[in-house]
Amino acid sequence: MPTAGVVIIGNEILSGKFADENTPWLVNRLRALGCDLLRVAVIPDTLDDIALEVAVQSARFDWVFTTGGVGPTHDDLTFAGVAQAFGVPLHHHPELVAILHRKMGSACNEAALRMAEVPEGSELWWDGGVTYPLVVTRNVCIFPGVPSLLKLKFDLVAHRFAGTPMSTRRLQSHDTESAIAHALTTACELFPAVSIGSYPRLDEVPFRVIITLESRDEGALNACARWLLGRGPGLTEAS
Amino acid sequence: MPTAGVVIIGNEILSGKFADENTPWLVNRLRALGCDLLRVAVIPDTLDDIALEVAVQSARFDWVFTTGGVGPTHDDLTFAGVAQAFGVPLHHHPELVAILHRKMGSACNEAALRMAEVPEGSELWWDGGVTYPLVVTRNVCIFPGVPSLLKLKFDLVAHRFAGTPMSTRRLQSHDTESAIAHALTTACELFPAVSIGSYPRLDEVPFRVIITLESRDEGALNACARWLLGRGPGLTEAS
Repeated sequence: MPTAGVVIIGNEILSGKFADENTPWLVNRLRALGCDLLRVAVIPDTLDDIALEVAVQSARFDWVFTTGGVGPTHDDLTFAGVAQAFGVPLHHHPELVAILHRKMGSACNEAALRMAEVPEGSELWWDGGVTYPLVVTRNVCIFPGVPSLLKLKFDLVAHRFAGTPMSTRRLQSHDTESAIAHALTTACELFPAVSIGSYPRLDEVPFRVIITLESRDEGALNACARWLLGRGPGLTEAS
Repeated sequence: MPTAGVVIIGNEILSGKFADENTPWLVNRLRALGCDLLRVAVIPDTLDDIALEVAVQSARFDWVFTTGGVGPTHDDLTFAGVAQAFGVPLHHHPELVAILHRKMGSACNEAALRMAEVPEGSELWWDGGVTYPLVVTRNVCIFPGVPSLLKLKFDLVAHRFAGTPMSTRRLQSHDTESAIAHALTTACELFPAVSIGSYPRLDEVPFRVIITLESRDEGALNACARWLLGRGPGLTEAS
């Protein structure tokens, strides 16, 4: 299955000036696509932070999605950070320069042209017949931070990251986590294809623990649920 | 000023099974406290991921706040991960063991006692006269993942992380980012104590760019705003 990491680039998120809409949206979108999201990092607009996080994630995952830092102002450093991550220089991509000149006319100043200054060797993805392509450096897809733009551009290329979505079942117990811990540990050993999570819901009345089972193997998933329902203390299907 | 990083430990967040309520809450709380949040990482429940991220953040920031992974089940690996980060063994902390026995009585089984198995050298913080303390290993504060519990426990110790909150001003322009980029870059050079952000609001009608100015030096903040308002193309106070 494809794996992915997300790098949210923006002081404005860390400082609480703007809420992070992109992470929750990407989490749900990747889940639906069947692409395993294995890490999200929210980092400042600084060259070294971007370069380090992108280098680490690029080496570990099939895909890396960055958001933010691709505009024309001083705090837009994502292209430079990705270039540093891979030790390649930036260059003005001729196709992007041509598009900006055509779109902006005489307003296409030096600042605007920073948007066309991308890591050498980057690809342009034109999926969906867009007028402005997505810039992709190796396995790093560089998305804008503006949530409406990110969503639009991600959905056009999403088919490239698709795997098999997980199947899920939810059980519950009104007993404590400690009481069911042994049964869960045994289930993990018996059904290694199933990922089991245990989440106490302290705010709910009556108190319950939600147990989530996830797998791409439907047979193993159901066998694991059956085993737990027959054994665990007070385990039932979750409402 | 104190600096901080956050480590959100949980497959359930990455896989979208549960929404991450803790990050937005911590972001706003740290902003109000004047503690500079410089990184958030959302990582899976695996020993190596926890150990690596905690080691990196602990070395870079004054404080690290972890959430999640402190219960009695197989997927609760935070104490073990923090121990690995610092190369120290786990041990059953006698005070925690005693509390669990007192609270749980005969229900205090082997699984429950994993909650008392913490990295050697950890401190217990009793702020607010709590009946169950916060476990702190060096500069790493280990919080529960259940949002209501995290908030309760964080607020009791928050005074330890307080600095001077940032002052903020917001300007706006109906022109493009490219048109104002030069003025912003110059302002960054003239007022290095002010952190300047530029955020296009593509969904708003009329279109505008919000420019945020932040500083702990009120004089520099106002001087920077005055300079931009007198110079920038179409810059006004943001509504």
